[in-house]
Amino acid sequence: MCMKDNYLDEIFNPESVCVFGANNNLLETMGSMQLRNLKSGFKGNIYPIHPRLENIQGLKAYRSVSELPETPTLALIILPPRVVPHVLEECGEKGVKRAIIVSGGFRERRDEEGLELTRVIDNIARKYSMRFIGPNCLGVYNGWYGSDDTSHYLMTFWPYFIPDLGKVSIISQSGTIAAQTFWYAKNMGLKMSKSISVGNEQNVDMVDLLRYMKDDPQTDVIGLYIEEIKRGKEFIELTREITPDKPIVAIYGGGTKAATRSIQSHTGAMAGNAKIFEGVFKETGIVFTDSIIDFFYYLRTLSYAKKYNIFPKGKRIGIITESGGSATLMTKKCELLGLKVPIFSKQLQEQIAEYIPLTGTGKNPVDITFFKNFYEFVVKLPKTVLKSGEVDGILFDGIFDFGEILEIIEKGGGSVDENMKKMINLFYTTFLKPLHRLAIKHSVPIFYSGPQLYYYNIYREFLKRDIPIFELWDAPPKSMSILVKYSEYRRSRNRN
Amino acid sequence: MCMKDNYLDEIFNPESVCVFGANNNLLETMGSMQLRNLKSGFKGNIYPIHPRLENIQGLKAYRSVSELPETPTLALIILPPRVVPHVLEECGEKGVKRAIIVSGGFRERRDEEGLELTRVIDNIARKYSMRFIGPNCLGVYNGWYGSDDTSHYLMTFWPYFIPDLGKVSIISQSGTIAAQTFWYAKNMGLKMSKSISVGNEQNVDMVDLLRYMKDDPQTDVIGLYIEEIKRGKEFIELTREITPDKPIVAIYGGGTKAATRSIQSHTGAMAGNAKIFEGVFKETGIVFTDSIIDFFYYLRTLSYAKKYNIFPKGKRIGIITESGGSATLMTKKCELLGLKVPIFSKQLQEQIAEYIPLTGTGKNPVDITFFKNFYEFVVKLPKTVLKSGEVDGILFDGIFDFGEILEIIEKGGGSVDENMKKMINLFYTTFLKPLHRLAIKHSVPIFYSGPQLYYYNIYREFLKRDIPIFELWDAPPKSMSILVKYSEYRRSRNRN
Repeated sequence: MCMKDNYLDEIFNPESVCVFGANNNLLETMGSMQLRNLKSGFKGNIYPIHPRLENIQGLKAYRSVSELPETPTLALIILPPRVVPHVLEECGEKGVKRAIIVSGGFRERRDEEGLELTRVIDNIARKYSMRFIGPNCLGVYNGWYGSDDTSHYLMTFWPYFIPDLGKVSIISQSGTIAAQTFWYAKNMGLKMSKSISVGNEQNVDMVDLLRYMKDDPQTDVIGLYIEEIKRGKEFIELTREITPDKPIVAIYGGGTKAATRSIQSHTGAMAGNAKIFEGVFKETGIVFTDSIIDFFYYLRTLSYAKKYNIFPKGKRIGIITESGGSATLMTKKCELLGLKVPIFSKQLQEQIAEYIPLTGTGKNPVDITFFKNFYEFVVKLPKTVLKSGEVDGILFDGIFDFGEILEIIEKGGGSVDENMKKMINLFYTTFLKPLHRLAIKHSVPIFYSGPQLYYYNIYREFLKRDIPIFELWDAPPKSMSILVKYSEYRRSRNRN
Repeated sequence: MCMKDNYLDEIFNPESVCVFGANNNLLETMGSMQLRNLKSGFKGNIYPIHPRLENIQGLKAYRSVSELPETPTLALIILPPRVVPHVLEECGEKGVKRAIIVSGGFRERRDEEGLELTRVIDNIARKYSMRFIGPNCLGVYNGWYGSDDTSHYLMTFWPYFIPDLGKVSIISQSGTIAAQTFWYAKNMGLKMSKSISVGNEQNVDMVDLLRYMKDDPQTDVIGLYIEEIKRGKEFIELTREITPDKPIVAIYGGGTKAATRSIQSHTGAMAGNAKIFEGVFKETGIVFTDSIIDFFYYLRTLSYAKKYNIFPKGKRIGIITESGGSATLMTKKCELLGLKVPIFSKQLQEQIAEYIPLTGTGKNPVDITFFKNFYEFVVKLPKTVLKSGEVDGILFDGIFDFGEILEIIEKGGGSVDENMKKMINLFYTTFLKPLHRLAIKHSVPIFYSGPQLYYYNIYREFLKRDIPIFELWDAPPKSMSILVKYSEYRRSRNRN
């Protein structure tokens, strides 16, 4: 299917944009920051509209959209709410068919003026057959904008932070979750396709966007931040269609007293009972959580599974560590989450015994206590477990960073030769790549963890290569359990 | 009480140490790495003992402890288990009274040889009135070693990473949790006093160490990683005595089938039913969790509370954000955890209205949507809420990093003058310091959060100044709830 047939494509891939509400004050005016970010990745024409300024951030400014030399595909409006109807009408007259209305002060004000303004913009949109995102939103990010050329992107958010490119798309009823979590996402290796802050969903809602994502070849996994669901029936039908192919992860904000009050002030929505939402999520195969951090881990995990087609066939987990503490904690978490950590067969235990010292144990969890030989620990051991047919997934915990180790040795006065340094580069090609391939072949994912942090070089190298690595031991069992459950659901819906 | 009266003080603050099992191979020998780390912070004499080498890592080596020019306070033994009895006997003869036995291969082997070796070292220790940590451990870290001089420390672990100095002490039945979590701890601002990997607890156990920590003026908060409790009655009596003054946070590894198997291989311990442990923790006022990440957050939170004597008097939480999404998610978490997010009085709402735009809400959660004035948002607003008497704690979420913002402006071609740059330094002294003081005065903690990450400068500045800041929105409500519950417990045990 050609995405151009979907009217939303003109919002994700406009040829030109007119911008209302930007000036040259980058410190205080949100619209100015949004124009700056739009400029940074856009390749078409941008037309700032301003009643007085002739030049905005190096671009020629126009007094009105009627003066523009062409009809822009998209209007981006960041103006006080009372002015919005006027400029929207002007856009309609000019023939602009798509808009993002960032301005707040509509339905969510819950007063007569807010409601009246809402009715007015609804009518204008109907009159000119316009479709718009918002109001009360931050707009969109599209990393695949101008899709064959990955150096460009479309970004209407105000914080400037460009995520890594991938196939995770987020549709969010909170601008913060759509835009400001990019710091976190990039740090932990989530690779983004699109992110949409939908605001009040006055014209385009989550269902419209889900319909687009369903067909979008640049979207593999969808994340939803939900405060309300506007079209329940359509939402259920559509997500049930999507989830066997493209996993959906949702975080629901409502369900408690003050949270519901918060939602009313936020988007004017009526949040519902958490049990109802949980019921909907279960029925539609949507993975859900209350934790913003788990939300990102689940998206990353399912994106990895989808990209490499790794869907574990059961719930038997092998755990390999060099530490009894992390082995114990991850084993406990796995069991509490419904996964199995089975005792390995005598035969497998004997094979493992070859690679581990006497102080270690090969029963599962495998705790080697310390490695006799790094290659055996990092390659032979997981390979043996992976090929045994006794596990459906592997959690592997250790310290990998021998770059750091070499540095410490040199600082301590020891000598490090060139061969040792080469080992660091060889680590990826020799150690991780063949394992990664084997994991794909057997559909047995290997999740790595360790005590170091994402900003360490070694972790960044893992993430760059799509090798799932985690800081410490909470997230790996949780993510594995989500992947196992999703894979089971996927099979039950007849996909392999 | 003088800590010197406790026999463990000679393990934390030895005057001299002899080391068995180190050589010059820093890449492969654990003992060598341990010696390197010991050297790095120690100020007394270190005597490597080696049958052949004359010089180890720049230190004169001796063939036997009997040849040493003095009697060392402490012996550090990293040798194969069969050799341990021999050198321990020699240490006894020389008059060495304290030891750390790192070597594994004793009780945890669960065979006759392991049990026999255990009996032998027990007898030697009895014969010479020696006390030792281990075997099967990594030993100790003491950041306050040579206490009046903070440039020194005692460290027998093998990974080299020195945490920031503070008053959190960890006693752990896992070496990894004692030593390798330092990366994480330092990154998120946990300031450490001591950390002890207790191993098999053959001679010195958790109860002995708790008794030391109880009196230790350099310990405010205690973290425990538990796989078994050896002396249940003493443990319960002692921790019940400690917790009203010094909070204890525990993470228990056992309680599920495979986790119990893991523990048996790890330290040879018999783990018990999780319910029994939970019962013990509740009875003794110990804060507990299954999450390693929460473990560190709770320690950090209680250390902050203890240092500044901030113990909230109730469970009413005020939430201040510039984002409806984070407001909603934190409000929901607070409520799910038993905290209250009460609607503010009309009077307080009117006061708040002065500082926020029309699109915002002052009901609680306060969502300002965007700030009209940064100073009003970051200082006046929380100050007003804090002084209202309507809350017992505050969660404050926003983007603070205007260092980053200025950088973005400059990159975008905007101009940043000197006054703007000064603002960054003024931020701490003008904005945060007075609020911090006010928080202490009213015993109303303010927890900050935002989308940025601990490795960003601004977060590091917060952490350096003991201002509790969090990445995203999971940990602040959880940590606040732990603090509120602990404060309630503390009052119920008659401390204020």
